[in-house]
Amino acid sequence: MTNSLYRVLEAIKPLDSTAMAKAQQRQYSLTKPQDSLGRLEELSIQIAGIQGKSIPELKHKVIITMAADHGVMDEEVSLYPQEVTRQMVLNFLQGGAAINILARHIDARVIIVDMGVIGGFQPLPGLLCKMIDFGTKNMAKGPAMTRQQATDAIEAGIELVESEINKGLDIIGTGDMGIGNTTASSTILAAFSGKSAKNVTGRGTGIDDEQLTHKVKVIETALSINKPNPEDPLDVLAKVGGFEIGGLVGVMLAGAAQRVPVVIDGFISGAAALIATGLAPQVKDYLIASHVSAETGHKLMLDFIGLKPLLDLNMRLGEGTGAALGISLAEASVKILGQMATFTEAGVSEAEPPQGK
Amino acid sequence: MTNSLYRVLEAIKPLDSTAMAKAQQRQYSLTKPQDSLGRLEELSIQIAGIQGKSIPELKHKVIITMAADHGVMDEEVSLYPQEVTRQMVLNFLQGGAAINILARHIDARVIIVDMGVIGGFQPLPGLLCKMIDFGTKNMAKGPAMTRQQATDAIEAGIELVESEINKGLDIIGTGDMGIGNTTASSTILAAFSGKSAKNVTGRGTGIDDEQLTHKVKVIETALSINKPNPEDPLDVLAKVGGFEIGGLVGVMLAGAAQRVPVVIDGFISGAAALIATGLAPQVKDYLIASHVSAETGHKLMLDFIGLKPLLDLNMRLGEGTGAALGISLAEASVKILGQMATFTEAGVSEAEPPQGK
Repeated sequence: MTNSLYRVLEAIKPLDSTAMAKAQQRQYSLTKPQDSLGRLEELSIQIAGIQGKSIPELKHKVIITMAADHGVMDEEVSLYPQEVTRQMVLNFLQGGAAINILARHIDARVIIVDMGVIGGFQPLPGLLCKMIDFGTKNMAKGPAMTRQQATDAIEAGIELVESEINKGLDIIGTGDMGIGNTTASSTILAAFSGKSAKNVTGRGTGIDDEQLTHKVKVIETALSINKPNPEDPLDVLAKVGGFEIGGLVGVMLAGAAQRVPVVIDGFISGAAALIATGLAPQVKDYLIASHVSAETGHKLMLDFIGLKPLLDLNMRLGEGTGAALGISLAEASVKILGQMATFTEAGVSEAEPPQGK
Repeated sequence: MTNSLYRVLEAIKPLDSTAMAKAQQRQYSLTKPQDSLGRLEELSIQIAGIQGKSIPELKHKVIITMAADHGVMDEEVSLYPQEVTRQMVLNFLQGGAAINILARHIDARVIIVDMGVIGGFQPLPGLLCKMIDFGTKNMAKGPAMTRQQATDAIEAGIELVESEINKGLDIIGTGDMGIGNTTASSTILAAFSGKSAKNVTGRGTGIDDEQLTHKVKVIETALSINKPNPEDPLDVLAKVGGFEIGGLVGVMLAGAAQRVPVVIDGFISGAAALIATGLAPQVKDYLIASHVSAETGHKLMLDFIGLKPLLDLNMRLGEGTGAALGISLAEASVKILGQMATFTEAGVSEAEPPQGK
C-alpha cells in the first residue's frame, strides 16, 4: 500500500455525533409532525454528521463518471460491442447521454474520466485522463490487472477528488461506463459474499438466457483461476475488478476522508463500495445508496454493505443516473433542515410528543 | 349532478395511444440499453399519452395545496389542536412550511386554497378563497356536509384548474392541510374497500395506541351512522369526506379533462383519488402516485385504485411534499425522452435486440 492510499485510509474518521444530535433537535423543532418526512430527515442528519455541520449545505454537486474497458469482453459477455465504451464517452462529452440530462436536471457538473478505455483519446475538452492501461486483461485467463495497477487506479480517484475540492465539492455522485463491467462487478460480489456466480449474475445490458448461462460460466472460471481473497480487497480489485471500479474506490475513500457525502449509483458503484468498505469499514457512513437497480445481485450487494437504497425505479443504466436522482433527494433533505420555519418562528401550536419520544 | 361537473366528466378521454407508441419508439432509439431507465421510461410514455405529444413538456409545474377543517375533531382524533390548520395556512403563505421548501427545490409554484378553514381569512396575498363552510360537521354524529356542498367543493377544484390553465399548467401536484383529515380519509377508504376501520386506520400525525383505538371507534361510528354508499362517490364525499378532499377531487377531474398529469401526494390525496376514479374510472390514467406513505392503509388505497407509487421514503406529512418529489421524477423522465441523443445522432453502435422485443 502506497503513501497516498495509506494517508487517506488513516484520515477517515467517524461521523460528527454532535452535529447529528443538533440536526435531530432542529428537525423536531420544524413545523411538521415528528419524523413525518421519514428518510429525508434521516438523510439530512447523516449529511450533518458527514459535513460536521448541524445545518449542512450542498451547493457544489458533482457527478464523477469513470470509464474503462474490460478484457473479459474476449469472452463475449455483453450484448454491446466493446467500442461502445469509447463511443459513449464521446456521447458524454457532447452532452447527449442520460447522465448529462439528469445532471443538468439537478444542476450538477459531470466529470468524465478515462480510466482505461481501449485506444485512449486525444485531449478533449471535458475529459480527464487518468488512464491506467488500454483496458484490463481477460480475467477468465488470469488477473485483470496487477496489484500496482489496482493501487494506481484507486489513487487516481483520490487525486481527482482532492483536486476537485478546491473548485467546490459538497456532494459526489458516482457513475461508470464500461462494456463488460457487470461481469467484473458480479465476480467481485461473488468473491466478497461467497455466493455462487449464478446467484449474483444478471443480464447487464439485456442478454438472453443462453448468454446469461455463458456469463455465469465465465465468472466461475474467473473465480477459480484467480481465487480472489476477500480478506484482501486490493487482491479482489486486481484479479477480477476494473480500472473504473478502482477509480471509484478512490473517489469513495477520498470523499469519506474529506467529509463529503458520496451518493453511489447502481451495481458497478456498489462493487466499488464493496472494495472501499473492505479497505475501511467506516466509509459506509459516508455513502448514500441512491437506488436498488434491476440488476440481479444489487440488493444482495447493498445488504452486504449495510446500505438501504432511497429509490427502486427498476433502473439499470449506470453512468451515475441513479446517483443523480439520489443527489436531488439529498439536496431536498438539507433544504428542509436548513430552511423550514420552526414552530416558534411560525407561531404554530405544537403537539404533545407521543409516548416514548 | 350539476352542469360543470357533468361537463368535466364527459370531457375525460382515453390517453393518446399514438403519442405513446411514438414515445416508446423514441425511447428505444436513445443511447441506452432498452428499458434500462425502468419507471422513468414508463412515466415519460404515460405523460406523452396524457399530453397527446410524443415529446411532452413540463414547463409550468404547480402544486395545489387545499386546506379545510374537520368537524370530527370534536371527537379528539388528532395529536394537534384544530387551530393548527389555520396556523399552517399562514405558514404556507410565509413560505416556511415543508411544501414551500420542496416546491422551490423543484421550481414549482404553490397555490394555497382555503376550502373551509374555521374562522376564514382576511384577503391575503397568495391565498385563494374557495371556502365552502367553516369546517365540516362532525361525521360521528351525521353527514360531514350536504350533497350540494360536496358538489360545490368538487366544482371549486375544477374552476381553479380551469383558471390556472391560462397561466400555464403542464403538471399538477396535489396537497392537503386539515387537522383530522386522516380520519376522514380512512373512513372513505373503509367505505370503498369494505375493509374494517381497524385495517385502514393509522396514526396520522403520531397518536399513541390508546388514541388509535379511539380513532378506530370514531370511524366505525361514522360508518354505521352515515352508511356511505360506495356506488355513489358523491354520497361518500358528503357523508364522511372533507372540503379539501372534495376540492382535490375536482382538481383531479379537471386535470384529466384538460390532459394535464396529476401527481398525487399521500393518504388524503389518495382518498380524493378514490372518489375521483369512482366518478370517472378513466381518471386513473392521468394520475401519477408519487409515493406510498407511512400511514396505514395507503398501500391498500393505491392498490385499490390500481396505482404503483414511485417513492417509498416513509413520509407522512401531506401538504403535497411527496407530490413535489414525484413531479421532479416526472420532469426528469420527460427530459430524458426529449433531450437524449439517439444512437444515430451520437454514432453509438446498437445492440442486437434481445429475443422477444
